Amino acid sequence: MINELSALRLIEEQFQSAIECVEVGIGDDAAALRVSPGKLLLATTDCQVEDVHFRKSRITPEELARKSVAVSVSDVGAMGGVPKFILASLGFSVNEDERFLRGLIKGFKSSEEEFGVKLVGGNLSASEKLFLDVTSLGEVEPENLVRRSGALPGDAIYVSGTLGDSALGLRLLSDGKTSDEYAYLIGRHKCPRPRLALGRRLALSGAVTSMIDVSDGLLLDLERITVQQGAGARLHLSQIPISREYSERISDYTEDFFETALSGGEDYELLFTSPPARRDEVQEISRALDIDITEIGEVVSEPALTVLDPGGDEIDINRRGFIHFGN
Amino acid sequence: MINELSALRLIEEQFQSAIECVEVGIGDDAAALRVSPGKLLLATTDCQVEDVHFRKSRITPEELARKSVAVSVSDVGAMGGVPKFILASLGFSVNEDERFLRGLIKGFKSSEEEFGVKLVGGNLSASEKLFLDVTSLGEVEPENLVRRSGALPGDAIYVSGTLGDSALGLRLLSDGKTSDEYAYLIGRHKCPRPRLALGRRLALSGAVTSMIDVSDGLLLDLERITVQQGAGARLHLSQIPISREYSERISDYTEDFFETALSGGEDYELLFTSPPARRDEVQEISRALDIDITEIGEVVSEPALTVLDPGGDEIDINRRGFIHFGN
Repeated sequence: MINELSALRLIEEQFQSAIECVEVGIGDDAAALRVSPGKLLLATTDCQVEDVHFRKSRITPEELARKSVAVSVSDVGAMGGVPKFILASLGFSVNEDERFLRGLIKGFKSSEEEFGVKLVGGNLSASEKLFLDVTSLGEVEPENLVRRSGALPGDAIYVSGTLGDSALGLRLLSDGKTSDEYAYLIGRHKCPRPRLALGRRLALSGAVTSMIDVSDGLLLDLERITVQQGAGARLHLSQIPISREYSERISDYTEDFFETALSGGEDYELLFTSPPARRDEVQEISRALDIDITEIGEVVSEPALTVLDPGGDEIDINRRGFIHFGN
Repeated sequence: MINELSALRLIEEQFQSAIECVEVGIGDDAAALRVSPGKLLLATTDCQVEDVHFRKSRITPEELARKSVAVSVSDVGAMGGVPKFILASLGFSVNEDERFLRGLIKGFKSSEEEFGVKLVGGNLSASEKLFLDVTSLGEVEPENLVRRSGALPGDAIYVSGTLGDSALGLRLLSDGKTSDEYAYLIGRHKCPRPRLALGRRLALSGAVTSMIDVSDGLLLDLERITVQQGAGARLHLSQIPISREYSERISDYTEDFFETALSGGEDYELLFTSPPARRDEVQEISRALDIDITEIGEVVSEPALTVLDPGGDEIDINRRGFIHFGN
């Protein structure tokens, strides 16, 4: 019995030896590799497995292929880079019909345009359960690379968009609540929009000290850019950005208004840190791209996560991120 | 119901549009991408799926991880390139024990040294059936890239090493014949040796017009570098290189001495074409690296595959390569 975090730790221990041509190895959103002067190659892979990450009855093959690309290129964007190429390794049953494959192809095709990438290779395997493993390759100038490490005490913590929509959308979908009134939330789950333009713009501004895409839930991903790097974070609960749709529906599922926003995964929003002095630049980027960016807390020196209620009192919160593994 | 070849055709149709930064896209051993002046980035992915490509009871986790890297880097070598980085996307059951994961890690670790690569990233997913999807990234100078296309009528056809050992080894393994006397053949199946040094040397010589690694069987892979490119091939059956161990054991399984050598997959030998005038250079490389290279036939203009018996008569052969998909 093994979980994702302890497995990752085991792997990081073994493969983190420094090597000249690897700027960033295992443990960030993407690897950053020195393959040409003046540019880093970003490489990352993300896998969607049937009955773990999705159920075939609840997503079309087009949506599934598009999502598998979206979540993979998202990691390139979270490093400040521009995705360029993808490789798709597909495992599917020999009993799958051609229409299904055509649907997947259509989804990959539309992703090429949407994300500005080109599918250049991949692999087909037989597999009882469907899986889509998408490798994304991208580029970033060394000076614009934004890593998970780099946050300093005193930095402000920001997040784009709203949180918890995807996790709530998944619950609605699982309950068969697919009518139009739930379309926004379900759409956030099935058709996540990686913040590529925002990630790139933030990186180019030089105002950002660390960045990650929120794939496993705010608290877990925040821990990755603070606690795991030796710093800590203080979050202001009242500042967590929540959509109108989330506000209206969350009480159908839980009395804890914030839990899903704090811990629900797959939002693919950008979580980043920036010195308070650069606040205006961050807000300028938000305005220019018409993407909400909310300041939700600050980096502190003690390597722990605390959440404060509107009165400034510490809340005893059940720290829990959505873990793909073991789900 | 769909098979690998028709699925591949469908995909190639959709994604083969020319784009400036893609020198080679879908349809070769690896994609070749222009990401830096003077160098092409090679990218390829290969997946091993439990009960499709392997059975857990018949291979150790170390061997499995090593093999998943070996077959992936082999595609980089078959383009004339040097593998540099790998990403490993693993799917495995939450009930897997840590010892198993440690075994996989050990296998990846030893691959780094053996193949001169660095594991720089990957992904962990839950999955009922184990799978290992390994993306390899490598480099080659544009002038040394060897593609599947390029064979010209009159070119000699060569193959390295011996053929059929891996497929026969798999049969022995499936029958539980694991005593020492079968070790060579089973070893050829479980621990394939990608011909990286040979592929590189052949590419640097400039003597090679096309190249592929024999992963799906000689006949099918030969078709890929000839018939699918508009040319054909004439094979001399008596020249097919066979190991002593294969000769001694194949009759336990089939009366057709050559079928397994012609159609059995996973040899990971190099199959390549070269003008007859450069025969001496090819043999010089064979001697220098101490790797047997055998001339097995010639490229012809008519886009068909023919096999000749020792008397020069055409053999009516059941053309069949080992197809992973639908297996």
